Amino acid sequence: MTPAVRIGVAGLGTVGIGVLRLLSQHADLLARRCGHRLVVDAVSARDRTRDRGVDLSSVRWFDDAAALAEDPRIDVVVELIGGAEGTGRKVVERALASGKPVVTANKALLAVHGGDLVPAAERQGVALAFEGAVAGGLPIVKTLREGLVANSLDSVVGILNGTCNYILTQMRETGRDFAEVLAEAQALGYAEADPSFDVDGIDAAHKLAILAALAFNGRVDFADVMVEGIREISALDIDFAEILGYRIKLLGIARRGANGQVALRVHPAMIAPGKPIASVEGVLNAVVAHGAPVGSVMSVGPGAGAGPTASAVVADLVDVVRGHNPPGFGAPADGLPPLAVAPPDDRLGAYYLRLMVVDRPGVIADIAAAMRDHTISVESLVQRGRAPGESVPVVIVTHDTSERQMLGAVARIAELDAVLEPPRLIRIEQMDD
Amino acid sequence: MTPAVRIGVAGLGTVGIGVLRLLSQHADLLARRCGHRLVVDAVSARDRTRDRGVDLSSVRWFDDAAALAEDPRIDVVVELIGGAEGTGRKVVERALASGKPVVTANKALLAVHGGDLVPAAERQGVALAFEGAVAGGLPIVKTLREGLVANSLDSVVGILNGTCNYILTQMRETGRDFAEVLAEAQALGYAEADPSFDVDGIDAAHKLAILAALAFNGRVDFADVMVEGIREISALDIDFAEILGYRIKLLGIARRGANGQVALRVHPAMIAPGKPIASVEGVLNAVVAHGAPVGSVMSVGPGAGAGPTASAVVADLVDVVRGHNPPGFGAPADGLPPLAVAPPDDRLGAYYLRLMVVDRPGVIADIAAAMRDHTISVESLVQRGRAPGESVPVVIVTHDTSERQMLGAVARIAELDAVLEPPRLIRIEQMDD
Repeated sequence: MTPAVRIGVAGLGTVGIGVLRLLSQHADLLARRCGHRLVVDAVSARDRTRDRGVDLSSVRWFDDAAALAEDPRIDVVVELIGGAEGTGRKVVERALASGKPVVTANKALLAVHGGDLVPAAERQGVALAFEGAVAGGLPIVKTLREGLVANSLDSVVGILNGTCNYILTQMRETGRDFAEVLAEAQALGYAEADPSFDVDGIDAAHKLAILAALAFNGRVDFADVMVEGIREISALDIDFAEILGYRIKLLGIARRGANGQVALRVHPAMIAPGKPIASVEGVLNAVVAHGAPVGSVMSVGPGAGAGPTASAVVADLVDVVRGHNPPGFGAPADGLPPLAVAPPDDRLGAYYLRLMVVDRPGVIADIAAAMRDHTISVESLVQRGRAPGESVPVVIVTHDTSERQMLGAVARIAELDAVLEPPRLIRIEQMDD
Repeated sequence: MTPAVRIGVAGLGTVGIGVLRLLSQHADLLARRCGHRLVVDAVSARDRTRDRGVDLSSVRWFDDAAALAEDPRIDVVVELIGGAEGTGRKVVERALASGKPVVTANKALLAVHGGDLVPAAERQGVALAFEGAVAGGLPIVKTLREGLVANSLDSVVGILNGTCNYILTQMRETGRDFAEVLAEAQALGYAEADPSFDVDGIDAAHKLAILAALAFNGRVDFADVMVEGIREISALDIDFAEILGYRIKLLGIARRGANGQVALRVHPAMIAPGKPIASVEGVLNAVVAHGAPVGSVMSVGPGAGAGPTASAVVADLVDVVRGHNPPGFGAPADGLPPLAVAPPDDRLGAYYLRLMVVDRPGVIADIAAAMRDHTISVESLVQRGRAPGESVPVVIVTHDTSERQMLGAVARIAELDAVLEPPRLIRIEQMDD
């Protein structure tokens, strides 16, 4: 029998316990597949006394996760603490500095510091594997980095946050408003007590930054990702989207334009329901990569949770044990250029604009004039309902226009006396075929 | 600069030319990603004089593909001749015997002889890579073998033949019958002049045999795959499927039952349209893998064509160049047990049965009695339309029953005087969630 591989796991939250369970339950299967037994030798977490429902009696305990990372008996370090800074970061840095391969599911760390950590790992000649950091059970890192390695990709578009997709799906199916569905999602455990990380799009932006680095073989500055969450999506807009034949999803979009710059955007978007990604509902994630010569390839599956994320973490462990260590961001990191990112208002596309206006003569003319003065071509402009002197919704759909022009027109429209609430702007997204 | 990798390509059909084009167009991208230049050093095909639209002047020509496979200057052999026997097989065997890694897109060869070739490659310590053999541009071999390596899979279900999916999609969208849509598909180049390989399910069965070997780490005897094509699907059945809320797809199904035996079946199936795979239309392929702890993961994309298949072949080349060579069927081949395959009539599931009967009193009672006598529980039994003394369709949907009982009932029903045409039986497939 070949020697066992000794694993140190830093972080025993839901995913950490999921990894321990999986390594134990599939110990024989994994040994058969990769030729070595994968043995948890040491763990670290904050509170040793807490009952986590797994037997830790044969495992060494470290109060100090950084010490675990440097422990000479450990062959591979698994970092599941999370966070762009603090202990999680220290564990990864110490392990790499000690020449140990690292497997992590820490999306914030990779998104913010991946541009330094990935080259550091490559200089040390050890793996820094992070399949679990993006889209949980979907092997999307491997798909982009290896499966589609022969392609020149021009876009990666994804539903990257299951909480948001669940909320938007529920809103559409039940007609309820955001706050109500969020409260229910929190009660069911699909959303955190502090939901801002999910619903404001930060989590999706972390994943998008990693996907963009992989797809375009570049260093991504996380501050370059434009982020807009789903708090402002109302039941009214979801209704109008259905009427217009669209479905609203929170998308992460990395798309290379004709000038070579890559747009990096996270925001709610309207998608035609004929597109396969439009039918990905509930907590599922999906990623569509488009490039030449392959065309479009989509992966759909569970994007979070102990089981799916453990599946990704242990797959990385098997790669490490098999000695498989392709370049972290798809090409050797010391030659990775910073990704040239397009300004967000360079976007060229169609828009949905919904206003609440006083139902009186002349309002539509003022709105139309603002669009004309910003050279925006309007596909439809419809007042929904009649209520003279009262507030009624007006829905505008544009032809392709630049975001700069659109924002100019929206600013002017917002100042009209007859416009009673802040305008709601939702981008209409064409998927590549 | 690291040395170039010299590639020999045997077979210059659509895919072969696609590979040559891709290696040329993405030469710099690939060199950056994998650290070596991938250079086509030699090719072989039947007719040297044919103009294939690519410049072969700097490439050595072999009339004898087997000689190319053994040529000492060649580092990797790419076999794109196809076929379970003949030259394609010889090229792969000779290359492996010469200790050369092989990349192939030959699904028939892998399905029929994979159980010998994969162990042969492993004994030699060289790669036998076959991503291009299943579902073209989808990196499904890598997904099953590496991305989901930590899982115990219980089913792999796929739309594995784009020609059949195109025909069934067209039939549904236009209401036309099989023969008419097939003729159109042939005119458009979506179906071969001799379509039997596709429409009779053989091509899908080849791919299913490979997926099953990967998912369950076993040797598959291709003769164990139960195969039924789409020739008998009529516009009438597609209509009734819609009415009942189902969509008809040709599925390849590998599913492990409670007794450990694996069902291996290719046949048309009715799927509830809420399932993501039901909305995969046209020439696209899709594969859903279900297992623990990941749940369901689906990949969707182009399953054939020069570009997508070349994408897979060149991805395999990059793996070979990176020295990445995991066990061909997911676990070392010398320890692979033969897969225990369930008899096809062990299937437990629901059925759609459509009859053409004389519209007269007593017929329904005779049919119902046949179902009762085979202890089949009927969910619905509906005569569609009225035409006393004439032929009318009767559609029956059963609750879960064994295929053995179902076939017994169908045989008895077929013998009734009032039943005018051979009964049409279509399995209703529940997808794992």
